Amino acid sequence: MIPLEYSAAVDAGEAVRGTTSPNPPVGCALFDAGWEVIATGGTSPAGGSHAEVNALDAAGERARGATAVVTLEPCNHTGRTGPCAQALADAGVATVIYLTADPNPVASGGADYLREGGVDVRYEPHRVDALQPWLSSVRHGRVSVTAKFAASVDGFTAAPDGTSQWITGPTAREHVHEDRAKRDAIIVGTGTALADDPSLTARWPDGTLRENQPRRVVVGKRKVPDGNLARLGFEQYATPEEALRALWETGARDVLVEGGASLTTSFLALGVVDRVQAYATPLLLGGGRGVLAGALAQSLPGAPRFELTGVSVLGNDVLMEMERTCLQA
Amino acid sequence: MIPLEYSAAVDAGEAVRGTTSPNPPVGCALFDAGWEVIATGGTSPAGGSHAEVNALDAAGERARGATAVVTLEPCNHTGRTGPCAQALADAGVATVIYLTADPNPVASGGADYLREGGVDVRYEPHRVDALQPWLSSVRHGRVSVTAKFAASVDGFTAAPDGTSQWITGPTAREHVHEDRAKRDAIIVGTGTALADDPSLTARWPDGTLRENQPRRVVVGKRKVPDGNLARLGFEQYATPEEALRALWETGARDVLVEGGASLTTSFLALGVVDRVQAYATPLLLGGGRGVLAGALAQSLPGAPRFELTGVSVLGNDVLMEMERTCLQA
Ligand SMILES: NC(=O)c1ccc[n+]([C@@H]2O[C@H](COP(=O)([O-])OP(=O)(O)OC[C@H]3O[C@@H](n4cnc5c(N)ncnc54)[C@H](OP(=O)(O)O)[C@@H]3O)[C@@H](O)[C@H]2O)c1
Ligand SMILES: NC(=O)c1ccc[n+]([C@@H]2O[C@H](COP(=O)([O-])OP(=O)(O)OC[C@H]3O[C@@H](n4cnc5c(N)ncnc54)[C@H](OP(=O)(O)O)[C@@H]3O)[C@@H](O)[C@H]2O)c1
Repeated sequence: MIPLEYSAAVDAGEAVRGTTSPNPPVGCALFDAGWEVIATGGTSPAGGSHAEVNALDAAGERARGATAVVTLEPCNHTGRTGPCAQALADAGVATVIYLTADPNPVASGGADYLREGGVDVRYEPHRVDALQPWLSSVRHGRVSVTAKFAASVDGFTAAPDGTSQWITGPTAREHVHEDRAKRDAIIVGTGTALADDPSLTARWPDGTLRENQPRRVVVGKRKVPDGNLARLGFEQYATPEEALRALWETGARDVLVEGGASLTTSFLALGVVDRVQAYATPLLLGGGRGVLAGALAQSLPGAPRFELTGVSVLGNDVLMEMERTCLQA
Repeated sequence: MIPLEYSAAVDAGEAVRGTTSPNPPVGCALFDAGWEVIATGGTSPAGGSHAEVNALDAAGERARGATAVVTLEPCNHTGRTGPCAQALADAGVATVIYLTADPNPVASGGADYLREGGVDVRYEPHRVDALQPWLSSVRHGRVSVTAKFAASVDGFTAAPDGTSQWITGPTAREHVHEDRAKRDAIIVGTGTALADDPSLTARWPDGTLRENQPRRVVVGKRKVPDGNLARLGFEQYATPEEALRALWETGARDVLVEGGASLTTSFLALGVVDRVQAYATPLLLGGGRGVLAGALAQSLPGAPRFELTGVSVLGNDVLMEMERTCLQA
């Protein structure tokens, strides 16, 4: 569990998810000696300042002698912005606590720089949810992929006659939209694009658009006819591999594959699904359209196993979140 | 939420689950003026005394002036034991708080009897888990049926080649054994009896038997060959209807259908499944043996919907518990 006092930093990072790629959604909070928050900051969109600099700007002179909690080790390189380690030292911050080590060889070294400058630096490792997709993307050198599906507890996304509205209830559906706003892109197959004429936008329950919108991506060769996607604008790639490459090169780090069964199965078979979000509804169908389009393995030991990372009750539905076990290392 | 002080009564009822049918697993706790527990009692096996009498016996003279919390309205009829309402009044209990009204017309009226005797009687309605199967059995005049399955999050109980060990982990498997010990009977189809040679016992992790063992029941016409069931003893019925009738008439009230897919589908199609326990494991198979043997409805609105009543994380697995919506009334 992350200590409660650090939640101001964690929340500041969570608040900028979906707006920072290719940079990580970092949060920083500056505290006075009594653990009162002086100021917080989150990463600005690419080209803008990092979380630490935003927090320091907001704190002004009050940063002198403060304790900074940062969700990721402060950077030590001069990229599009100056190094954060230097900014923290220059502002007279007395203590820096960071919750995740920077895995990026170009950026790391911030902790050492600060220590040399006489700052008390502590690494307190905690799992910061907002950083997980970015961390996998750095580790694997490709965008982090989350596969999402909504199904009955016995694994069907539609009844035999194709009816699928609604598998899950309004609370779960709102959660999907909240999640979309935190992603860099939403991906569906041409099958879904043709069958559903989806908007792939992140909306409020009244249908209006949320502030942050992910990129809309369709995979497959078939032409998507006029409709919501054509009206709103979208990108199309012929294959999952092509989509992954193009998204990485254009700065995306955290993408959500929303189906259908055929496309989700393709991403799983490629071995690039880092996380799964399974929305399960207490309904038994016994037949209909399955979550996936075909078997991933003939035998149990060959099938992809995940580690459970979270369970949420959303109205009458359950969201199970899981992560590839190898990511834990 | 049931007030914390009442948990001594709730726990005393939970502790006798699986041993009381056809009587309900009731719990009673006697408290002094400072809400310290004087004594507790649970229902004895059929023919023995009820929870209130067991608690009164344990308290002796200290019951005078006490507050009794009982999970079910005290009975007012002279069955195999004397009425509990009279025993409470005779012992000088000052206040009786009960959490569930007695739905049984023969037994009810205990609250009125106590009030007439000058006892302060309060009905504070709360959902007591241990009583739910017995309450459904009284309401429907048949045994309460819980269907249990363990599957991957995409709804498969075995891989395409039939491998199914292990879908769920040790914590979930231990939970199944704990649950079995609380049931009157475990039911499987001949398909499972022939394929798995199951024991259908409630065991501890080291394989030794728990104290309370459910009846072992097989449904279907095929002969079960020599093996664990023949060695341990079991009952066999040709159809689900016959099993339900025989179990009811011989005092069972709370039974668990453990599969396979064909038998569980038959019970669901009969409309007699009151509760479902879905153990889901973070694994994706995409193919293999499904939870059910066939579609229960062609269209979404026709499929049985349940109300989520509990979600538990068991190691790396999730247990979702649900109840037929009509039972809420
Ligand atoms: N309940 C839910 O969570 C959910 C979510 C989304 C969709 N759905 C439903 O699912 C249905 C559509 O599913 P679907 O499986 O038919 O279609 P789909 O997965 O959306 O799209 C399939 C198409 O994606 C492309 N594709 C997939 N794998 C590929 C690969 N390895 N390489 C190249 N292209 C690849 C192909 O496009 P081309 O053939 O064009 O080349 C393929 O035909 C709809 O009815 C929709 O309502 C349900
Ligand atoms: N993962 C899990 O949770 C789980 C749990 C249990 C079993 N399993 C697996 O499931 C497999 C067996 O499943 P299964 O579906 O083949 O067999 P099953 O459901 O165990 O048994 C089927 C048999 O039950 C009888 N039956 C079912 N419905 C009936 C009805 N309406 N009227 C009369 N009889 C009825 C029939 O017996 P007769 O043909 O003899 O008349 C039928 O052949 C095994 O491999 C086992 O390992 C998995």
